[in-house]
Amino acid sequence: MQVRTRPLRADAQRNRERILRAAHAAFAEEGSAIQIDSVAHRAGVGIGTVYRHFPDKEALLVELAAFRFLGCLQEAELAAGEPDAWGAIERFVRGVAHERLLDAGLRDTLATLSPGRCHAPAERDKLVHCLDGIVARAHVEGTVRRDLTGRDLLALISGLGTAINQGAEPAMLTDVLLAGLRAG
Amino acid sequence: MQVRTRPLRADAQRNRERILRAAHAAFAEEGSAIQIDSVAHRAGVGIGTVYRHFPDKEALLVELAAFRFLGCLQEAELAAGEPDAWGAIERFVRGVAHERLLDAGLRDTLATLSPGRCHAPAERDKLVHCLDGIVARAHVEGTVRRDLTGRDLLALISGLGTAINQGAEPAMLTDVLLAGLRAG
Repeated sequence: MQVRTRPLRADAQRNRERILRAAHAAFAEEGSAIQIDSVAHRAGVGIGTVYRHFPDKEALLVELAAFRFLGCLQEAELAAGEPDAWGAIERFVRGVAHERLLDAGLRDTLATLSPGRCHAPAERDKLVHCLDGIVARAHVEGTVRRDLTGRDLLALISGLGTAINQGAEPAMLTDVLLAGLRAG
Repeated sequence: MQVRTRPLRADAQRNRERILRAAHAAFAEEGSAIQIDSVAHRAGVGIGTVYRHFPDKEALLVELAAFRFLGCLQEAELAAGEPDAWGAIERFVRGVAHERLLDAGLRDTLATLSPGRCHAPAERDKLVHCLDGIVARAHVEGTVRRDLTGRDLLALISGLGTAINQGAEPAMLTDVLLAGLRAG
């Protein structure tokens, strides 16, 4: 789940993941006002351990963005196991919409990041590759619009997150997106 | 086009609008690195005049967000003049998508604003009211999904902006949205 290139010792790696999970929950429940010591408390580590991994709140947020990207990739990989490609697309879209729904606070917090700072290029490429595979199968089935690519699907999923953030009904927005994706 | 409650003298009001239009163009073309003196130069006013209206760059951005909201409202009001409601929805969605396409720099810049700072509640209410009217007509026509409201349409438009920002083909994304909105 980490995006650093230098490997960490196993215990440091475990702490890092605990901090990220705690921060994810903290931002989701309490919003961007959350303090680093509250993250440390939730993770059950000292505040020094948090600062050793993440020198400031922005560094933690950048890593959280990558962490969420990986969550999205796991969702796509699970969905890819569906026997039919349309079922995989539906499962992926609904799964991600559900996930986003649960962490409005985190979403608002990530929106405060400088543009260009919440990228995780390797994770993004893997996700696009996985979605391209699902979309290619759906083209063979003839279940999605002919011009759709995995990259488009990812862009539409980002847009769905924004639309959910505006307070409209997630299930309804998801239905609109899925109906729009269906082959005509 | 202004959102201040205290009225300005006519010449001050004109300057304010010139500055906003210049800032809109400047951010759209040059991105968030733009300097206030470049905005003043484009607007043909002194830098002191810019600072009198907008004490810092964030104040200018907040006002620009409201300015864009009003642009969206004008787009909706124009679209509402279409003889059929589906035509109005299509015109509104395509018009706003086209507008967003033209100012990626501004969009990225606005994304750096603190959450909650880019609201213009009065302008937003007017826009939702206008969209509710169009959607109600479309329900009578039977051309849009039964559960759609003006607020949903606005949320979906925000999402469309995000999706366009990810670099996917705007015309294709707009088609997906419109197909998803259609009844049946």
